[in-house]
Amino acid sequence: MTKERPLILITNDDGVLAKGINELIVCLRDLGDIIVFAPDGPRSGMASAITSLVPIKYTLLKEEEGLTIYSCSGTPVDCIKLSINEILDRKPDLLVSGINHGGNMAICVNYSGTMGAAAEGCIFDVPSIGVSLLDHAADADFSESCRLARMLARRVLKEGLPHGIYLNLNVPKTSHVLGLKVCRQADGRWIKEFKRSEDASGNPVYWLTGEFKSNQPIHPDNDMLALNSGYASLVPCKIDVTDYDFISTLNNWKL
Amino acid sequence: MTKERPLILITNDDGVLAKGINELIVCLRDLGDIIVFAPDGPRSGMASAITSLVPIKYTLLKEEEGLTIYSCSGTPVDCIKLSINEILDRKPDLLVSGINHGGNMAICVNYSGTMGAAAEGCIFDVPSIGVSLLDHAADADFSESCRLARMLARRVLKEGLPHGIYLNLNVPKTSHVLGLKVCRQADGRWIKEFKRSEDASGNPVYWLTGEFKSNQPIHPDNDMLALNSGYASLVPCKIDVTDYDFISTLNNWKL
Repeated sequence: MTKERPLILITNDDGVLAKGINELIVCLRDLGDIIVFAPDGPRSGMASAITSLVPIKYTLLKEEEGLTIYSCSGTPVDCIKLSINEILDRKPDLLVSGINHGGNMAICVNYSGTMGAAAEGCIFDVPSIGVSLLDHAADADFSESCRLARMLARRVLKEGLPHGIYLNLNVPKTSHVLGLKVCRQADGRWIKEFKRSEDASGNPVYWLTGEFKSNQPIHPDNDMLALNSGYASLVPCKIDVTDYDFISTLNNWKL
Repeated sequence: MTKERPLILITNDDGVLAKGINELIVCLRDLGDIIVFAPDGPRSGMASAITSLVPIKYTLLKEEEGLTIYSCSGTPVDCIKLSINEILDRKPDLLVSGINHGGNMAICVNYSGTMGAAAEGCIFDVPSIGVSLLDHAADADFSESCRLARMLARRVLKEGLPHGIYLNLNVPKTSHVLGLKVCRQADGRWIKEFKRSEDASGNPVYWLTGEFKSNQPIHPDNDMLALNSGYASLVPCKIDVTDYDFISTLNNWKL
């Protein structure tokens, strides 16, 4: 009896046609059987959004030895839910989401569809990794990201991940990454978030934009600093958002 | 010099016309000046999604002494970002998101637009509360929810909340809530998540549905158990999703 090849589920939030996901497929191809189940177009900033008001659909795009590719009308999280509930005949051994065109460090993890999909895989107890490159260009160079994603994917296939924990890998825009640092999520938020413009009738409309601002104090082991220094960052993230330390304070409020 | 009245920002994910938000407005009205900035229609399950591919707009619906109501074309998080960046002349003293038609306990916090908005308020360092009633009915009875939301809002206006922490209040569907328990987020996930149907051409489409399944072990202080016992649940949630305990393990992987 031969050991089954690992089943690797791949998705993203830039859509199935993006360069990042297609480079990821190539670099993970020999690690297992690949199922790609990804949005049919861009879904950036969708976080863990789910589609409940309209139904979703999927389409088989490609089927060959060890590689099957589907596109889906839903969000990244819909992709994970639908593929695991309805398509796959067994639970994947690994989920890799990405490679995202653009960084998902710091507070971006809160808004990211790439990381929403990784969190969803984790909820299904599938070892899950989100991978992002700090370059929004459609033709970005993913070679260093692919090298690190592959290295991490192999390791996670071997080690697994504990219940409720998923990984957030970010890669700086450089042709030579200095190394990989395990980090905490940088504390900060976006500011100057809107560009005011006008629609065809002259009514004001607002386009999301903005810049990242760190909060004080700045912890030396945060992902933003690692990336700014030329390192890739790896943050272990958890599904449970309970703040256990604050429970006793709330109990003292005697509500 | 008279002390300024508190500025209270209210939003939701069921849209500005929902019963839940309108009952909330009434019950918080005398606690401060109220700004409502809420989606123009249902945005359930939008989590912390942001709108980046299209611009967003808002409309002033009502302006009277101590109460101003806007509707917005965006997500619940867009509503918080746009109102604080572009509309309000000072930072709110409190954000209350809800009252949601439907519970947001356990893993629902991950998908909820109600809680996405509360998290976003927290990112702006506004003391923020999400409030949800475990009743999806359009004409649900919000009297107990309003009583508890008002009690909690008064207390949070007085005490504030620490940086990075927001509150998740859920209220059971009953005419007499037994009390309020401070809880941890129940560990579990949704299963049987899709109903397969057909579109007009006979092609398969999938509607999101499902039921909640608890993971083992079940912790006695979780929000799901409190709600099932007739208590309201209050979970302190954190923005930082770093799993600090797992950092040393990852460092030992020597990646």
